[in-house]
Amino acid sequence: MTTPDFAPAVFQSFEEKADPKNVAPRLAALRTELGKAGLDAFLIPRADAHRGEAVPPGEARLAYVTGFTGSAGIAIVGPNKAGLFVDSRYTIQAPTQTDTKKVTVHEVGQGSISDEIAAYVPKGGRIGFDPWLHTPGEIRDLTARLGARATLVPSENLVDRIWPDRPAPPASTIELLGHNRAGKTSADKLGELQADLIGDHADAAILTLPESINWLLNIRGRDVPNTPFVLGYAIVPKTGLPTLFLDASRITPELTLALAGIAKLAKTKTLATALARLGKGAKSVLIDPASAPEAVAATLRQAGAKLIEKRDPVLLPKSRKNDAELSGMREAHRLDGVALAKFLAWFDDHAPSGQLTEIGIVTALEAFRRAEESCVDASFDTISGAGANGAIVHYRVTNKTDRALAAGELMLLDSGAQYLSGTTDITRTMSTGASTPEQRDRFTRVLKGMIAISTARFPKGTSGAQIDVLARQFLWQAGVTYNHGTGHGVGAFLSVHEGPTGISPRYTLPLEAGNVLSNEPGYYKPGEYGIRIENLIIVRDSTIAPGYLEFQTLTLAPIDTRLLDATLLTAAERDWLNAYHQRVFAEIVPLLDGKVKAWLKQATAAI
Amino acid sequence: MTTPDFAPAVFQSFEEKADPKNVAPRLAALRTELGKAGLDAFLIPRADAHRGEAVPPGEARLAYVTGFTGSAGIAIVGPNKAGLFVDSRYTIQAPTQTDTKKVTVHEVGQGSISDEIAAYVPKGGRIGFDPWLHTPGEIRDLTARLGARATLVPSENLVDRIWPDRPAPPASTIELLGHNRAGKTSADKLGELQADLIGDHADAAILTLPESINWLLNIRGRDVPNTPFVLGYAIVPKTGLPTLFLDASRITPELTLALAGIAKLAKTKTLATALARLGKGAKSVLIDPASAPEAVAATLRQAGAKLIEKRDPVLLPKSRKNDAELSGMREAHRLDGVALAKFLAWFDDHAPSGQLTEIGIVTALEAFRRAEESCVDASFDTISGAGANGAIVHYRVTNKTDRALAAGELMLLDSGAQYLSGTTDITRTMSTGASTPEQRDRFTRVLKGMIAISTARFPKGTSGAQIDVLARQFLWQAGVTYNHGTGHGVGAFLSVHEGPTGISPRYTLPLEAGNVLSNEPGYYKPGEYGIRIENLIIVRDSTIAPGYLEFQTLTLAPIDTRLLDATLLTAAERDWLNAYHQRVFAEIVPLLDGKVKAWLKQATAAI
Repeated sequence: MTTPDFAPAVFQSFEEKADPKNVAPRLAALRTELGKAGLDAFLIPRADAHRGEAVPPGEARLAYVTGFTGSAGIAIVGPNKAGLFVDSRYTIQAPTQTDTKKVTVHEVGQGSISDEIAAYVPKGGRIGFDPWLHTPGEIRDLTARLGARATLVPSENLVDRIWPDRPAPPASTIELLGHNRAGKTSADKLGELQADLIGDHADAAILTLPESINWLLNIRGRDVPNTPFVLGYAIVPKTGLPTLFLDASRITPELTLALAGIAKLAKTKTLATALARLGKGAKSVLIDPASAPEAVAATLRQAGAKLIEKRDPVLLPKSRKNDAELSGMREAHRLDGVALAKFLAWFDDHAPSGQLTEIGIVTALEAFRRAEESCVDASFDTISGAGANGAIVHYRVTNKTDRALAAGELMLLDSGAQYLSGTTDITRTMSTGASTPEQRDRFTRVLKGMIAISTARFPKGTSGAQIDVLARQFLWQAGVTYNHGTGHGVGAFLSVHEGPTGISPRYTLPLEAGNVLSNEPGYYKPGEYGIRIENLIIVRDSTIAPGYLEFQTLTLAPIDTRLLDATLLTAAERDWLNAYHQRVFAEIVPLLDGKVKAWLKQATAAI
Repeated sequence: MTTPDFAPAVFQSFEEKADPKNVAPRLAALRTELGKAGLDAFLIPRADAHRGEAVPPGEARLAYVTGFTGSAGIAIVGPNKAGLFVDSRYTIQAPTQTDTKKVTVHEVGQGSISDEIAAYVPKGGRIGFDPWLHTPGEIRDLTARLGARATLVPSENLVDRIWPDRPAPPASTIELLGHNRAGKTSADKLGELQADLIGDHADAAILTLPESINWLLNIRGRDVPNTPFVLGYAIVPKTGLPTLFLDASRITPELTLALAGIAKLAKTKTLATALARLGKGAKSVLIDPASAPEAVAATLRQAGAKLIEKRDPVLLPKSRKNDAELSGMREAHRLDGVALAKFLAWFDDHAPSGQLTEIGIVTALEAFRRAEESCVDASFDTISGAGANGAIVHYRVTNKTDRALAAGELMLLDSGAQYLSGTTDITRTMSTGASTPEQRDRFTRVLKGMIAISTARFPKGTSGAQIDVLARQFLWQAGVTYNHGTGHGVGAFLSVHEGPTGISPRYTLPLEAGNVLSNEPGYYKPGEYGIRIENLIIVRDSTIAPGYLEFQTLTLAPIDTRLLDATLLTAAERDWLNAYHQRVFAEIVPLLDGKVKAWLKQATAAI
């Protein structure tokens, strides 16, 4: 067994980079700008114009002003009060990062806001917002909530005025995906998209989600952590080449040449002019009101365009992975399976000592992954929950919360990587010795649910909302459940969370062949332990029933059979588990060395 | 075993009362009226103003003009063409009933219409409609479909002008439910409804669904077949007594006295004036756009009322049956269980002869039910499908389609009754001797699905849409399914189909304790056989898991174990079936005579 090379550099940071002392002077500076701009308050969302889970440093305005570094939230700064609205994942973290004497923290639903926002602005006041950072949907919702109590006013971003050393936009190298990885030329993708536009009577579509643009143009980059894309905008006309809008610094003759025949290049600063030109031509333009910036919608609208509000037309085709993408995803999961086998063998060796820490575990797993050269990033910050921390569904370990994993505790580890061939996301819950009958009961019910999804067969047209209960039924029988979705879409060397299909009551679109989804039921006992078991699965045409779909499992890593109560399994469930483990062994063992081979053999032994 | 007294009068008619020869002269007469009214076409829906499944004879305008007697559909009569739009249940029946030289039959989705309607009216023409027979939702949908091609014009009903002997409105006796049956006084129901109205900032609600009005006022009647209600309208103010609008002939001093303190009475003819008065007072008035007549909405709107469009506020409280209602439903199911046991014993005796007919079976079952005095009606027309007819999901036997049940064929029988204590709905599929391995496989998968629903446990807040798949999963594994919902709500001595909860992807409201639902998965092999197994179930608080709900089965009748492939059952499923049969035996056997007792003992023997 190889001991990992503990590379000091990990993809993830364990720092809570926040200095509450900065909050007061920055609020004061912002209030001076409010006065100059004739506004009574200003909105500071976490989102950038591209709605990604990670934002580049120069877009981290919410953290700059309030100190809060979570991945979702919005602040309002009024004349003498400021409020920060976060969801339940961040109600503990936010007060530790901001200056709670100056900023009141409110809990709201994820991606939502509450009517209390009106209390931060004088009655009838003017609330400024940067129209690049809010969608038309959000602005309509907020306008309805405020009613006559305040008015929303589009404005320049006042935070940028008080941020002297604001980092420049990212400009990572732009790479073109080879045909072996993309599986379809950009020209072919564009042809199908343009046929859809003509069907929608649209003259053009505006794409603002980088994952859509990167998929359409078969390009990738490293502009933000975790998701290997290039940030930009695109205008796709119903005929002819799309225009890709990039930061001026990136537009080089080399790139222009590389993208010749795929896209024209233009500077981001010229986007508004290009939109206005569409408007003046009275064009019908498709935008997605759930993701496009209000600035895009407003510029088009004011210039005279007819807006067609519809889901980003790339989302569905992108979710139907082609054979090359699926083959890449399979390759990525073999590589990840090797890293997991090495890691789990190492973990089994070290965990009983009680000396492992959550951060040590993240670091070790990452080192095993980085041993594979094509692993270029983590696909998200690892959730490394020892014992009771495993019960915090969205736990992110920091230097402050890090703790040792005592022998006998459960360890929940949810992680993923970006390999050049594809994206992974896997959760395993590991025994470190003893476990209680209750833990084994819950673990087995979680596994039964995961198997029920893995073995589901369903007619075309069935949505993820319809099959979600298959994963929950065994927990429900015991009067318990989990408060998160069962599965989300996963991109192919792209976002680890992607729509528009998934498995939960909110995913009502039909599942389609080629979708890659997570399958991750769980159980969480606050203050004690957490359990989650997650594999990625591919939707494919049923091999035995015409007109039906079924799943094929991508993830290749042992499930800890020491945590099973085998008496709760049906014969069919036992068969599934044994067949899965047999497959894991067969696919991974040729890629392993001696000692890990032996470990894998016992970890995948039939029960 | 008692042979039933084959009472010649059955609740159900087996006649297809249609004379296509009437169609041409009635269309001609209607076209004369079109000319006089300055209209180019007229709409004739099957619905009456109360949206019930059955309509009184004087409201059967669609049948009067086109001959078509199905329970849903709409016709348009234009200057020289007429079209009839029916759903897939009626695409065979409709052409046999109407004059297809004069009327073109189109297939549309249930409760829907297609854009082809525009072809029946000259471009830019005026389509008249009776605003009492269409909802605001339907009118909005139709207006959008027609676009600039035609205009909808509210009109007097032209059919009534050409119908000299049109039957008078029904005026059955109005009875008050005793407190032992209603379980809650009308005053208490009204108090809760008025609290809801105040919460909605509504000054009044208009109720147009008879089931809502009858439930609220604790009254019943026999105005139409199958559903024991009184047809009427009600205005419920936010304080004070509601006004019940009835046909003038029914307003007697006795009724006024009987309803004193419950409701004021007024003549239906004064409803429009009362609505206009609300409008002139600029009142906020709640109406349900999915069921209120457009005439109600338009009268209110034009008089100046503020319309609050919301679900009929009685539907949810009515769906939460109280203890008295549930106790009545249990009593009704014991009575129905006795009739079913007698019938099934009789069936087993006679079916092997191959001499039973579909109509003979309906008549026998009804006779066994009518032997119980409190059985006052069928809750719907029995679906009696022998062999291949069992595969027609909404089959209604007529003298023309009636056929003998050959030995060896499957018999699908879906029926229900109205007892004074409650409403029943049950489907059983019976063996008549041999069955094929495929039939046993499908029967067992249907049963496994029915058991999965029967034994489901789920957290409060879970909808019927979420659990529907539990019933389908075993069929889906075999690559087959059924194209209908798994379950619908059932009223307590009211409509056998009631909303707003049920079990299918379209029922997204949370299930609640006290809901009574059907649980009826099926499998249909066109041209060969049909299988459906249906019990009614009550939603109740879980007896073991706080915050969870589960089901309790109401229906008490044996399931034909001769059609089982017991190797497909899990131990838990087998236990459920044996425990169910044990309960059926224990509850029903004390109410039976000798020979049927012996039959029930073997029919409920453990497998």
